Amino acid sequence: MASSMMETCKSEDMHVDIEKNQRSQWVLNAPEPPSLCRVVADSVRKTISQCRQNISSLRDQTCTTLLLSLLKLVFPILAWGSNYTATKFRKDLLAGLTIASLCIPQSIGYATLAHLDPQYGLYTSVVPPLIYAVMGTSREIAIGPVAVVSLLLSSMIQKLIDPAADPVGYTKLVLLVTLFAGIFQASFGLFRLGFLVDFLSHAAIVGFVGGAAIVIGLQQLKGLLGITHFTTKTDIISVLKAAWDQVHNPWNPRNFILGFSFLIFILTTRFVGKKKKKLFWLASISPLVSVILSTVIVFLTRADKSGVKIVKHVKGGLNPSSIHQLDFNNPYIGEVVKIGLVVAVVALTESIAVGRSFASIKGYQLDGNKEMMSIGFTNIIGSFTSCYVATGSFSRTAVNYAAGCETLVSNIVMGVTVLISLQFLTKLLYYTPTAILASVIISALPGLIDITEAYKIWKVDKLDFLACIGAFFGVLFASVEIGLLVAVVISFSKIILISIRPGTETLGQLPGTDLFCDVYQYPMAVKIPGVMIIRVKSALLCFANANFVRERIIKWVTEESKDDKGNSKGTIQLVILDTSNLVNVDTSGIAALEELHKTLSSHGKQLAIANPRWQVIHKLKVSKFVDKIDGRVFLTVEEAVGCKSEC
Amino acid sequence: MASSMMETCKSEDMHVDIEKNQRSQWVLNAPEPPSLCRVVADSVRKTISQCRQNISSLRDQTCTTLLLSLLKLVFPILAWGSNYTATKFRKDLLAGLTIASLCIPQSIGYATLAHLDPQYGLYTSVVPPLIYAVMGTSREIAIGPVAVVSLLLSSMIQKLIDPAADPVGYTKLVLLVTLFAGIFQASFGLFRLGFLVDFLSHAAIVGFVGGAAIVIGLQQLKGLLGITHFTTKTDIISVLKAAWDQVHNPWNPRNFILGFSFLIFILTTRFVGKKKKKLFWLASISPLVSVILSTVIVFLTRADKSGVKIVKHVKGGLNPSSIHQLDFNNPYIGEVVKIGLVVAVVALTESIAVGRSFASIKGYQLDGNKEMMSIGFTNIIGSFTSCYVATGSFSRTAVNYAAGCETLVSNIVMGVTVLISLQFLTKLLYYTPTAILASVIISALPGLIDITEAYKIWKVDKLDFLACIGAFFGVLFASVEIGLLVAVVISFSKIILISIRPGTETLGQLPGTDLFCDVYQYPMAVKIPGVMIIRVKSALLCFANANFVRERIIKWVTEESKDDKGNSKGTIQLVILDTSNLVNVDTSGIAALEELHKTLSSHGKQLAIANPRWQVIHKLKVSKFVDKIDGRVFLTVEEAVGCKSEC
Repeated sequence: MASSMMETCKSEDMHVDIEKNQRSQWVLNAPEPPSLCRVVADSVRKTISQCRQNISSLRDQTCTTLLLSLLKLVFPILAWGSNYTATKFRKDLLAGLTIASLCIPQSIGYATLAHLDPQYGLYTSVVPPLIYAVMGTSREIAIGPVAVVSLLLSSMIQKLIDPAADPVGYTKLVLLVTLFAGIFQASFGLFRLGFLVDFLSHAAIVGFVGGAAIVIGLQQLKGLLGITHFTTKTDIISVLKAAWDQVHNPWNPRNFILGFSFLIFILTTRFVGKKKKKLFWLASISPLVSVILSTVIVFLTRADKSGVKIVKHVKGGLNPSSIHQLDFNNPYIGEVVKIGLVVAVVALTESIAVGRSFASIKGYQLDGNKEMMSIGFTNIIGSFTSCYVATGSFSRTAVNYAAGCETLVSNIVMGVTVLISLQFLTKLLYYTPTAILASVIISALPGLIDITEAYKIWKVDKLDFLACIGAFFGVLFASVEIGLLVAVVISFSKIILISIRPGTETLGQLPGTDLFCDVYQYPMAVKIPGVMIIRVKSALLCFANANFVRERIIKWVTEESKDDKGNSKGTIQLVILDTSNLVNVDTSGIAALEELHKTLSSHGKQLAIANPRWQVIHKLKVSKFVDKIDGRVFLTVEEAVGCKSEC
Repeated sequence: MASSMMETCKSEDMHVDIEKNQRSQWVLNAPEPPSLCRVVADSVRKTISQCRQNISSLRDQTCTTLLLSLLKLVFPILAWGSNYTATKFRKDLLAGLTIASLCIPQSIGYATLAHLDPQYGLYTSVVPPLIYAVMGTSREIAIGPVAVVSLLLSSMIQKLIDPAADPVGYTKLVLLVTLFAGIFQASFGLFRLGFLVDFLSHAAIVGFVGGAAIVIGLQQLKGLLGITHFTTKTDIISVLKAAWDQVHNPWNPRNFILGFSFLIFILTTRFVGKKKKKLFWLASISPLVSVILSTVIVFLTRADKSGVKIVKHVKGGLNPSSIHQLDFNNPYIGEVVKIGLVVAVVALTESIAVGRSFASIKGYQLDGNKEMMSIGFTNIIGSFTSCYVATGSFSRTAVNYAAGCETLVSNIVMGVTVLISLQFLTKLLYYTPTAILASVIISALPGLIDITEAYKIWKVDKLDFLACIGAFFGVLFASVEIGLLVAVVISFSKIILISIRPGTETLGQLPGTDLFCDVYQYPMAVKIPGVMIIRVKSALLCFANANFVRERIIKWVTEESKDDKGNSKGTIQLVILDTSNLVNVDTSGIAALEELHKTLSSHGKQLAIANPRWQVIHKLKVSKFVDKIDGRVFLTVEEAVGCKSEC
């Protein structure tokens, strides 16, 4: 019986051997991976067949339903509007009125930040929300002017035309930038270039927005201190210097006292609103209350005569057409297109980030490309109706959500409310002190500086934090564009750096398993004597890292063969390259492998490849590398280790 | 007995379960990976301790041996020189004379290509080989002027100063570029920036050199046709147009007949040399023979009086000092530094590529950083002694190897031979026809156009071929610099593209194993019902690809849950993300994973992570993601699949 057991064992052994051989054949005889042309062709074919399917599914319908389907695709409101109920409307009405009360003072403030007349901010809170409401796919986003984009516009466009010297020319440029930003945004959506928005990493956005918030706050010193002549630069040093110079001059503290006391009032209501969730509306309407109260105070005391700066005339009435103001023969047209591109990306980043986060709370999916098209069209039409760049606002969207909005109807309510204000109430804004607008803007900033998130980034990823802090200081000490540039450059350097200087790790066997893992990650892993198992921490073995990897492996193998005193231990007979995470190699990578094989051979060592992926094994076969290493290609590291005995 | 077996099975099952649990703990309780600061500090400490070790090993020695060790490090010739034998010298002498005979006509030709006087080519074949011989680590490289660098210099510098109008100023600029190129090369070596050379991928070099060879050949039309006024542009269209214009003018065919017949002679000897390996020296000396023969013919027939262009006066004598010609107050200094950088990289690329390939044939390792320093010092000292940029030549190194060189002494022999020629034989070059020099250069070009390699690249990697062909057409139709730029941009776009648009694959179980592999690579792999196993083909889950990956996975899961008619199959309960090839994630990646988890949860599906690597599991723990997915982190996919029953 014992002998029969042994025989069974033997036959099992043989069986295992055959199986292992067969598995090696699985690796070597894998079907050819799709070629590049094939992949491209397939992708085109898929898109076409999808279009065809869509068309054929439409063909069965009558002309009316066809039109309706198309309309529903472009204007999602037609789809969800049919299920709209009175209950939903009650909620949306409340939310819309709440965001309108926050929006009016903010819009005027942001327009000032963008060096535009106050009414442009209000215009931008009328048309864009209405357009977005019929085209957008988010349910919570509140559209309108936002702080970061306003700052970006003013800081980039005032380099071309000084808004103080030529306000009309400046406004024309802003409208033109808005048009181009809209065109870029719509094309991103149309050509499915949504990934461009991803180029600003989460960490970079946190740093950039934080820096921008401080810069915006500093810009408000002008309004808060009632300064007439202020620096046009945005970096912290220029601004603080300009403010310091003003403090030395005789100045009127009334502006500051008025602004500062209402700032404290707004911040207190915000604090109360946060503590008691039911009182959140208090925080939302406090800016409007402040504006009304301060206007009444100034009107009653005629404080404007004793130095308190006021908004004065705000042009009322509906959005005028601005098509005739879009001048394409502008001498700065090249610059305008460039600014349009930067603004388009930044605006989309804010809107999509905020839309996505609320969509994931409510558990639905936001279509990035559709969103880009909606925001793009919103801005294109906005540029025809005296609006500057609008996008989804962080602060107002949060208020909209907290106020219980159900659909984009809240945007319609807000737009109509602002429209009514524009028509009938602008005259009442005459005596509104500018210091209050500064307070309203400053009060919105703390939400943009996310220190908790920055700390989390620091804890999780130091290089990410570098991008974050780079963007922050870039915005703060240089300019908004440089901050953006720094962020993008640091983010991409990281990708390139990891590609050109990948780490390498030695693997050992986990006890009781046939798994091979990094010996540092798993200290219990045991190295196999005489065998060196190496894995490269990169998805690509390519021109940029192949020689580095080759030299590193040879150095390791040489070091491993010697003991501490430099005497040869001479034990390593087999070097196994675990290629399980290599997605692809290029010709330089294969050349490096060939040189590695030659060098190892000349030292009497053998090279084996374990677990090559599809593209890798295909290229190793085509370039005859598999033949050169006598077919030592295995499905797993364990099987490769098994070949040591044959060596 | 049966019951006892069952019990054994049970206890084994339990044992396995415990082990699996333990393994999960291995994953979760891995030691913390070294932080970024730690890695940087370790690398610095290692370098310092290495320096210290070197110093302490030197400290034990006497002052003389210390100095000797240092000298040996800087001048390897002192190390290998002590083993030098007469047998070796006989071989080196023969090889040195062979490459000298090839070098003299080539040097004069390349100097003409660089728009310099012929003697500068000879100067560059004297000092650089001597310096490199005492400092270099290769044994085969033949140093001197090369075609591609000569073309690069002339095409970039003539944009600053026209060599026809101001030859002295032009030569000064060339010497200054040589100095800066040398400084850059030496610093690359000193600061271990060898990877900069890798930025030109193998494929790009093949395309670039091929294109440059054709451009160089076209430039020789001037000499071959005996044209006096030729275009200064290098692109194929301008050159062909200029040549065509000349053909229409009355022209003297004698130049062409002379040049073309000797070109055929050289190519024939080359062909014979390739067929019969023993006659290879015939190919090597045929250029010199051609020069001598044609010079004699012109001298005897006085053909120069009937329109055959001749070299005329070549300044003889030793290399003059050129230190006083290095003018740092040059108005073009910024441009010169830039050209120096480009030339430095291209020259190093050629030299290291050729050195490496012969080192790997002879089975020794070339120290890239040491090589860069040697070439750098060679060029720095060259710029003081009227030499322009020298580097390892493809063609002469191959001849040196074929002639049986043993050490760099062959370079010394060559240098001394050229020195003697300069001193005594330059007057004999007076009647050498320029058409012959053109023939010599043209005859060296076919070796630079490597169609076999280009075809191999095409077969192995289509994107690599794109870089190759981009560089080729860039050089051919635009300019040398644009060709280089195209090559680098295409090569890096590939890395970025793979990072921002990684593929994803579904895994299935290989029959008879517990391995999970790509179902397309291994058609025999079987998908597990109710489970979707996904792997991302990227080493990084980062800002640039996280949203793309998240959307792709959700789309797949949704599609997989529906049958062809769009009805819900609703079977997928568990989505396993195999992160075995993810080297790192950043905060955007973690945010995407969190959103993925939320979305899957809201559809009643669970997310599990299999085989996370060191950095990944660390970050998932720090960001509390592991807690969010209830600790569903496993060592292998198989164990993750096992958790389905618990779901």
